[in-house]
Amino acid sequence: MKLYDCTTAPSPRRVRFFMAEKGIDIELVQIDLAEGEHLGPAFQRVNPDCTVPVLELDDGTRITEIVAICQYLEEMQPEPRLMGRNPTERALVTMWTSKIENHGLGAIAEMFRNRAKGLSGRALTGPHKFEQIPALVDRGRTRLGHFFDRLNARLAESRFIAGDEFTIADITAFVAVEFAAWSKVTIADQQTHLKRWFDEIKVRPSVRA
Amino acid sequence: MKLYDCTTAPSPRRVRFFMAEKGIDIELVQIDLAEGEHLGPAFQRVNPDCTVPVLELDDGTRITEIVAICQYLEEMQPEPRLMGRNPTERALVTMWTSKIENHGLGAIAEMFRNRAKGLSGRALTGPHKFEQIPALVDRGRTRLGHFFDRLNARLAESRFIAGDEFTIADITAFVAVEFAAWSKVTIADQQTHLKRWFDEIKVRPSVRA
Repeated sequence: MKLYDCTTAPSPRRVRFFMAEKGIDIELVQIDLAEGEHLGPAFQRVNPDCTVPVLELDDGTRITEIVAICQYLEEMQPEPRLMGRNPTERALVTMWTSKIENHGLGAIAEMFRNRAKGLSGRALTGPHKFEQIPALVDRGRTRLGHFFDRLNARLAESRFIAGDEFTIADITAFVAVEFAAWSKVTIADQQTHLKRWFDEIKVRPSVRA
Repeated sequence: MKLYDCTTAPSPRRVRFFMAEKGIDIELVQIDLAEGEHLGPAFQRVNPDCTVPVLELDDGTRITEIVAICQYLEEMQPEPRLMGRNPTERALVTMWTSKIENHGLGAIAEMFRNRAKGLSGRALTGPHKFEQIPALVDRGRTRLGHFFDRLNARLAESRFIAGDEFTIADITAFVAVEFAAWSKVTIADQQTHLKRWFDEIKVRPSVRA
């Protein structure tokens, strides 16, 4: 089993963080996104959607999409549980992870990919060229503000995002909050619950994976 | 257990389709999206993100996000399996469902929500106002073209989307392809594999749920 990775990108970091929590140690194959290696014909044969991470199983099966990869790893090595301990918890973990992907990481992608000079013509991931749309930079920033407020409200009522246990939803949100800082969006002073949670997560050794 | 639903919207239809395949019959509570009932204070207490479907359990727990709802129902009533029979299949079902949501339904939402006169100021779901961005209509149409090609290529190598069994990935893609027709995007004559698959799915009684 091996993971196609890029140490500088937030998406594969979510899987490395997840694996570090479980103590899973597998071969990492670095793909140089800065040099466009993910768009070349060799990597397109690995993943036609040109994204990392990709988990390649020993039988050659390739799993893309972060939640799918983590779900497979959770089944292979259940402890410590990072995706819920019973049907209700598992559903809530999936629910919160989906919300964070859509409203948090989605907003950050809008801001970042529609502005960065190095991403001209690459406003969306994948093999096709898409020009940047400047209006999405402001929209992404507004959405991200709402997302931080929503997380703060949630964390006023719950120790972790999906409930009383640390899960993949916390990994996803932590990576989003850290990545938001690249676009100069940081936790506001009045977002005290979000700050309490962030300070609790950031000391886990796995955040440096 | 009850489901907050809206019979005219594609998102809750995915859950009704899924339940019909399993023979699950629960109370449906209609929310009138056309009248903005999802944006009112009563429904915001059910789901602050103002979306249907929402599955409400007997203990009051509310699950939003379609895949989370279906995952819970799959655990409550495993047969017939619609989310994979083993870890690899389950990961591939999650992977394909995620791709279809991002590249298919995401593209359709861009086209539809940024153009429809009735959605002025409602370019994104949720409680906040977002103005339409006309450039996203064309981008969505281009993305949707790529998505149809991608599905056609996948279905050249596989009977169903995630493998040799009908799954939630097929439900998701079928609802996307049908909904695309509202924006006048239909299966092209040369997309023969997509057409073969669509014709096979459309005769299942569950598509009318």
